[in-house]
Amino acid sequence: MTAARIDGKAVAAALRGDVADAAAVFTDRTGRAPGLATVLVGEDPASAVYVRSKGKATGEAGMASFSHTLPDTISEAELLALVDQLNADDRVDGILVQLPLPAHIDANRVIAAIDPAKDVDGFHPVNAGRLATGLDGLVPCTPLGCLHLLKQQLGSLAGKDAVVIGRSNIVGKPMAMLLIGESATVTVAHSRTRDLPDVVRRADIVVAAVGRPEMIRGSWIKPGATVIDVGINRVPAAEEGKTRLVGDVAYDEAAEVASAITPVPGGVGPMTIAMLLRNTVVAAHRRAGLPDPEGL
Amino acid sequence: MTAARIDGKAVAAALRGDVADAAAVFTDRTGRAPGLATVLVGEDPASAVYVRSKGKATGEAGMASFSHTLPDTISEAELLALVDQLNADDRVDGILVQLPLPAHIDANRVIAAIDPAKDVDGFHPVNAGRLATGLDGLVPCTPLGCLHLLKQQLGSLAGKDAVVIGRSNIVGKPMAMLLIGESATVTVAHSRTRDLPDVVRRADIVVAAVGRPEMIRGSWIKPGATVIDVGINRVPAAEEGKTRLVGDVAYDEAAEVASAITPVPGGVGPMTIAMLLRNTVVAAHRRAGLPDPEGL
Repeated sequence: MTAARIDGKAVAAALRGDVADAAAVFTDRTGRAPGLATVLVGEDPASAVYVRSKGKATGEAGMASFSHTLPDTISEAELLALVDQLNADDRVDGILVQLPLPAHIDANRVIAAIDPAKDVDGFHPVNAGRLATGLDGLVPCTPLGCLHLLKQQLGSLAGKDAVVIGRSNIVGKPMAMLLIGESATVTVAHSRTRDLPDVVRRADIVVAAVGRPEMIRGSWIKPGATVIDVGINRVPAAEEGKTRLVGDVAYDEAAEVASAITPVPGGVGPMTIAMLLRNTVVAAHRRAGLPDPEGL
Repeated sequence: MTAARIDGKAVAAALRGDVADAAAVFTDRTGRAPGLATVLVGEDPASAVYVRSKGKATGEAGMASFSHTLPDTISEAELLALVDQLNADDRVDGILVQLPLPAHIDANRVIAAIDPAKDVDGFHPVNAGRLATGLDGLVPCTPLGCLHLLKQQLGSLAGKDAVVIGRSNIVGKPMAMLLIGESATVTVAHSRTRDLPDVVRRADIVVAAVGRPEMIRGSWIKPGATVIDVGINRVPAAEEGKTRLVGDVAYDEAAEVASAITPVPGGVGPMTIAMLLRNTVVAAHRRAGLPDPEGL
């Protein structure tokens, strides 16, 4: 078997089109565009790239973008004051504080300061709790993107055996909650799992979010499984001095066995930004007392 | 093999002793006893029994008990007003609204109105989110009691394969989160799971919370597994007109295979009330700005 390559870029482009449509309707209806505020502290180059591409995508979707870049000498109190200001700013529907933050700032405290209604990253404990208890809230973008790809590929997930590898607050645990909500039988595996290959081998759905390059081998994959690779790892390329991106799954091996698999790059990555835009336009609607835009 | 019978009654009694000690120290230190307010709406006899035994246990632990019994004709607004009053009452450290509530009252709205710091049932979305993201909060009593029994029986749970059968907000999902926090490999199974016997057969730890009498058979249990039975089901007894309580697990069969198992009654049940008292005394300490009592 050679697996179908799940084209996250194409799915994300379609989703971004839907978001742009919803944003246009919202702007017509309320007289203002949905707005996303990004906060970048310090000069981590990867973070700067992420924030820039988020800002660009926001503009392309017809939404307003408010970009705040602060030196890494800023105090926690100053950052919290900025969050308060963004909470109070009616033009701002979504607030994204790019992680990681400098060590002298307590990221949990900053996340907890964001108005849950504007927490488009879905990291606030209130949103984690709403997800865990089946209430409407804002869901972290990466697992939401993974779920979208899975449902596009498989339709109903009810009764399927799913394994989530990784138990982070950002991917693993919310992914598990989403899959339980779709009535999959869900196993959460992680670094302490005893026989990971055996656990993975049971699964119809594998979501890998461990951050270890090509750790999950083709021989671990159940024939016909659907594989979602959240990992983005930079490794040395064949050509000296160059690097390339690989996932947490050994793609070529797994593609021999799986029925469908996401590539890295071009799989989950583009979905994360698309879901950030989706969350922002949904947050705008809820804040304005409007029903969620259809199909998003 | 004949399994050890996990004596939840004895473990709960020891825990209640520790809670009483902590309550006495708290009372000495602050000049007031930790207080639990219970709210019972309507006359469901089972609910009335639960609430009464909770009040009794509270008194026995040297804590103050405030009991509110309301007719089932009360409006949602009246119930919310009572919750507000209890939130504002400084003598009250814990608020327990007995579920189920009458159909004309939105239980989610009532739970969300409880101050999370007094939410000793751990049902508020903020507490569910704190549990899901690894922050300190108040954890639902039944899964917390199950975890206590498991750790007493097994010591470290790291790397063990655990299956939680049931995905309720009250037991299944918080149980899964607690077990993930203990580094077990956790599978959440439920009514849509395809081959439940096979899923259960993999598990070193089985937590059954489905509410179906003796559904889980001995032949499903992995030899040497530890079985925690959350179910409390009333079924007809051999003697005509009488009833008896059974769990979700076929006890006699499972006890032939497991290494340890909780009976019904006398297993998880007594732990739930003990953990309610534990949560109340912990909430009292946190509200007073004191460190959590040691060992609780």
